[in-house]
Amino acid sequence: MKKLEEYHFPDDLKAMSLHDMEFLALQIREFLIDHVSETGGHLASNLGIVELTLALHQVFDSPKDKMIWDVGHQSYVHKILTGRSSQFNSLRQFEGLSGFPKARESSHDIYDTGHSSVSISAAAGLVAARELKGENHEVIAIIGDGSLTGGLAYEGLNNIGASKAKAIVILNDNGMSISPNIGGISLHLGKLRTSKGYLGAKEFVKNRIGSIPNIGEGLAAGLAGLKNDVKYSILNHGVLFEELGFTYFGPIDGHDLAELTDILKRAKKLDEPVLIHVITKKGKGYVNAEKHPGKFHGIGPFDKTTGALKEKSELPSFSNLMGQFACQMAEKDERIVAITAAMGEATGLGAFSRLYPKRFFDVGIAEEHAVTFAAGLAKGGMRPLVAIYSSFLQRAYDQILEDVCLQNLPVLFLVDRAGCVGADGETHHGMFDLSYLSQMPGMTLLTPRDGNQLKAMMEYGLSLSAPCAIRYPRGNTICDNDIMYTYTERQLPGERLRQPRSIDIWAVGPMTDCALKTAEILEKRGYSAGVVDVTCIKPLDLSLLSPKSRYVVTLEDNVVAGGFGQMMAARLVNERKVKVLTLGWPDAFIEHGSVSQLREKYGLTPDKAAERICDWIERKT
Amino acid sequence: MKKLEEYHFPDDLKAMSLHDMEFLALQIREFLIDHVSETGGHLASNLGIVELTLALHQVFDSPKDKMIWDVGHQSYVHKILTGRSSQFNSLRQFEGLSGFPKARESSHDIYDTGHSSVSISAAAGLVAARELKGENHEVIAIIGDGSLTGGLAYEGLNNIGASKAKAIVILNDNGMSISPNIGGISLHLGKLRTSKGYLGAKEFVKNRIGSIPNIGEGLAAGLAGLKNDVKYSILNHGVLFEELGFTYFGPIDGHDLAELTDILKRAKKLDEPVLIHVITKKGKGYVNAEKHPGKFHGIGPFDKTTGALKEKSELPSFSNLMGQFACQMAEKDERIVAITAAMGEATGLGAFSRLYPKRFFDVGIAEEHAVTFAAGLAKGGMRPLVAIYSSFLQRAYDQILEDVCLQNLPVLFLVDRAGCVGADGETHHGMFDLSYLSQMPGMTLLTPRDGNQLKAMMEYGLSLSAPCAIRYPRGNTICDNDIMYTYTERQLPGERLRQPRSIDIWAVGPMTDCALKTAEILEKRGYSAGVVDVTCIKPLDLSLLSPKSRYVVTLEDNVVAGGFGQMMAARLVNERKVKVLTLGWPDAFIEHGSVSQLREKYGLTPDKAAERICDWIERKT
Repeated sequence: MKKLEEYHFPDDLKAMSLHDMEFLALQIREFLIDHVSETGGHLASNLGIVELTLALHQVFDSPKDKMIWDVGHQSYVHKILTGRSSQFNSLRQFEGLSGFPKARESSHDIYDTGHSSVSISAAAGLVAARELKGENHEVIAIIGDGSLTGGLAYEGLNNIGASKAKAIVILNDNGMSISPNIGGISLHLGKLRTSKGYLGAKEFVKNRIGSIPNIGEGLAAGLAGLKNDVKYSILNHGVLFEELGFTYFGPIDGHDLAELTDILKRAKKLDEPVLIHVITKKGKGYVNAEKHPGKFHGIGPFDKTTGALKEKSELPSFSNLMGQFACQMAEKDERIVAITAAMGEATGLGAFSRLYPKRFFDVGIAEEHAVTFAAGLAKGGMRPLVAIYSSFLQRAYDQILEDVCLQNLPVLFLVDRAGCVGADGETHHGMFDLSYLSQMPGMTLLTPRDGNQLKAMMEYGLSLSAPCAIRYPRGNTICDNDIMYTYTERQLPGERLRQPRSIDIWAVGPMTDCALKTAEILEKRGYSAGVVDVTCIKPLDLSLLSPKSRYVVTLEDNVVAGGFGQMMAARLVNERKVKVLTLGWPDAFIEHGSVSQLREKYGLTPDKAAERICDWIERKT
Repeated sequence: MKKLEEYHFPDDLKAMSLHDMEFLALQIREFLIDHVSETGGHLASNLGIVELTLALHQVFDSPKDKMIWDVGHQSYVHKILTGRSSQFNSLRQFEGLSGFPKARESSHDIYDTGHSSVSISAAAGLVAARELKGENHEVIAIIGDGSLTGGLAYEGLNNIGASKAKAIVILNDNGMSISPNIGGISLHLGKLRTSKGYLGAKEFVKNRIGSIPNIGEGLAAGLAGLKNDVKYSILNHGVLFEELGFTYFGPIDGHDLAELTDILKRAKKLDEPVLIHVITKKGKGYVNAEKHPGKFHGIGPFDKTTGALKEKSELPSFSNLMGQFACQMAEKDERIVAITAAMGEATGLGAFSRLYPKRFFDVGIAEEHAVTFAAGLAKGGMRPLVAIYSSFLQRAYDQILEDVCLQNLPVLFLVDRAGCVGADGETHHGMFDLSYLSQMPGMTLLTPRDGNQLKAMMEYGLSLSAPCAIRYPRGNTICDNDIMYTYTERQLPGERLRQPRSIDIWAVGPMTDCALKTAEILEKRGYSAGVVDVTCIKPLDLSLLSPKSRYVVTLEDNVVAGGFGQMMAARLVNERKVKVLTLGWPDAFIEHGSVSQLREKYGLTPDKAAERICDWIERKT
């Protein structure tokens, strides 16, 4: 048996028989499970897309034909089939293979993705360029059903549809499994070019919702139904796509290689916008992932047999604490509602969604809507919590500014995964939020360093009649239930953690740990340094600044450009006695790796920070 | 005859006969033409929505029933019908009536709008709040066909549709006139609840495109067709809305009060999401506006009889110069393409669209798509120019960062209407772009002070293999065709306009005029000041800084928070000899008024700036 590494992909795929491809699919699944169980990564979506990726690379000629992988975390099979299987030991590791398409890795990675719903618009651009240059190649966008809930995907469809140019959109619908009865009909229908389906719309939705795995509890079923309503309202039989100007094929069984290659060959012959609706099963072929596609969506290293995570923290995550506090606060205040954009469990709102299903809104991958919807809820007298990752909240910059801040509405943003996120890299680091949120008039911007502060800040944020954002990182933290304080009393101007000296380190949120360790190292090197935990970035209160301090160092898990340090420096520019060193992420896109490796590389560990501070002072004095 | 000011609206409307309302509609049109010809404003869209607004206020009970006006510039009739007709002399004037809905003006203005496509999401929030509180009132979003090309509108429809809660969306389709044949059929169909229309999809589109007024030239017709394809692909017979979960009524003649009130009453009785498709004629009832709806969309004071603008500048606008240069550059370089988001003429790209129709893309009100589409074009080897207003480009923050900057693609952003725009106010000032663009890694950010610089910067931007943004204000400027220089040679670090002294004013773009005048005033007060025109905000080169300068003043048409001044201050923080004063817009939303009034109020005129500088220096020394 030939190992994956021994093939010459994608060429070896071109003449391969269906039977051999089926065998290859098994081999790829085993390879994925073997590697991702060691490195961690996005497993379930890649297991679901094995046959589709094989069919794409057999029928099309990459990189001449251009495939754009929406979101990009489902590109592992594509990476295997474009000569990168030998690098999978380094997947998502520092200086290793990225978990997303990267042009720097391979000419087969046409477009670097990471955020949702961009593939169709990017494809539209490549198609327009092709037409203008009179070239002749295919452009294929592969997009999931989740990504299709984002408005950008609709803008892309609407524009490609109107252009009438040749483009292929593959809708990888892995929302649920293919039950046998539907599978049979889909085989029949896949060979027809039709937009009118094989079942009435309601039966279609009902049957498919009926086949969702892993439901069990009644409440969860209700929620799953809600989410799926949002999704399936846009899928019914392709009428919507036809209306937008696409020729619709589907649904197709995404695990049937014969059917897939057949439909791709047909699509290739057409000279118009085509949408192929492919039904795949997330986690396909690995029983643990099929049972728990959510858990195996993005996962750390795990035991292959049991599916159990290898490392488990004793400490709670910021996300889980946020969710727990939200539940406590919602019990006392009926006005509290929670909104997320397809990040319910991941932002810690799972329990909230089960306890308060009517007060919980998962709007799909639609951050702009999430924020404007929250503004509407606030106008209607509610107190919305909006929990979205920092990097994805960038999508709603305009809505935060124009809908929430301009109207001074009491929306509380829970900005999760702020700062360096590690293995997901460039597109997922939340390194810009301090910059983009602090420039918005009327925003209060808070940065807890632990669970206790998070709780106090959430209470404070909810007590305001104005916009507030609380940003906290991915990962775990401490929370001591015996410590009870309110934010207003103790912490508005920040908290002094180490008495002021000539050097004073002002650190943001959990970077205070680094600051305290840095101060200890400096102490050993003969410098004494104070430490302030800056809990409130905006409005920025400098009353904790001591007249003793000559050298102020700022330390933040954000780019320096437009961030806290720059604000502080601008505030201190006319203090003749004070010099400022701003430490944070450089003006660049930071690659993937472990958080500690990246901090090491970019000088944000205690050792490196101490070294930089010493160098700076020695140069200055 | 009763004057508009003498009515007690909206109450007086409740029992009014159709005949009286028809008369009132005439009176309102006359009032609008009289006032807007004096003050300037959004005329055509308001003339088109007179009957619809009358019908809404007769059938519904504002403010208990909540109307949300998408974009908001069509809310004049609503303002008249909610007790504000006596304030129309001050429309869009400093401290006068706003041209957009403002909660601070009236309890009937439920939600402050200004940017496109938000009304449905905001309505979704109000609906959800109503349901949770067990209240009983209507929520009505009034949205134009243009706004429906924005992804946020789709996210809103998708979510309201799935919620199944009662909500009314009025689609105000003023894209084109109602030709008699269609009007007759629409009357018939309006009384039916049907999603299947009266003509096949293609005939529907063809007939309607055939009836666009003001076409004439072949090329323009082609373009109009393209734009309308984008629009009409999403309208066909309501199937799309039905698929998204709405009950569709339409099309309805938007100038037939009987039909309108009838359909609104029917919609009120339903307990589900309803979409009413209303056909209106932009500019209705005023021949000049009917003939030139584009010109009368937003217009300055004009002569009522001829429709001619009262004030005409001898100088070209930055926008027109940009368009002219774009044409010149496109002639020499086939890779140049131009993209805009429903701002073709307004950004100066009219001529480009006629000269290079295949290389011009108006994507509708879809800024996110515009930017990702440009990224795709750049990936395909083209050199895209993206011309969008500063305030609307905020919508694409994430796409500029993640699609363009992360991939380091040569997309040239032409950021129009940057800085204070005057009469449109809060939602339209472009006061954040220096902040949000300068925090993006790899971005080159340029600020021309006149047409010659604009041209040199466009050439420079196109010569880069990386992202570049050029921001310039609304309004006119000089351009001397005898002056020819290239940006690289003369201006990368900025340009010194006045020799350095103890005070040095660093001004951004056209604010250099203010800086020069400020320096003259300072001279008279015994202070001498140098002036630097900072042409490049990022990367920021301080080599023009003179050792003579003790007091650096920054002056920018942007908020100070995160802007140029803050960056400069942070760079100078460790220069013991230099103090910095940052002048720009405060950390607040700036209201409407003339640019000079607003500059006066916020201290950005030469007199005020000189005063602030003197105060500062006297306090410091």
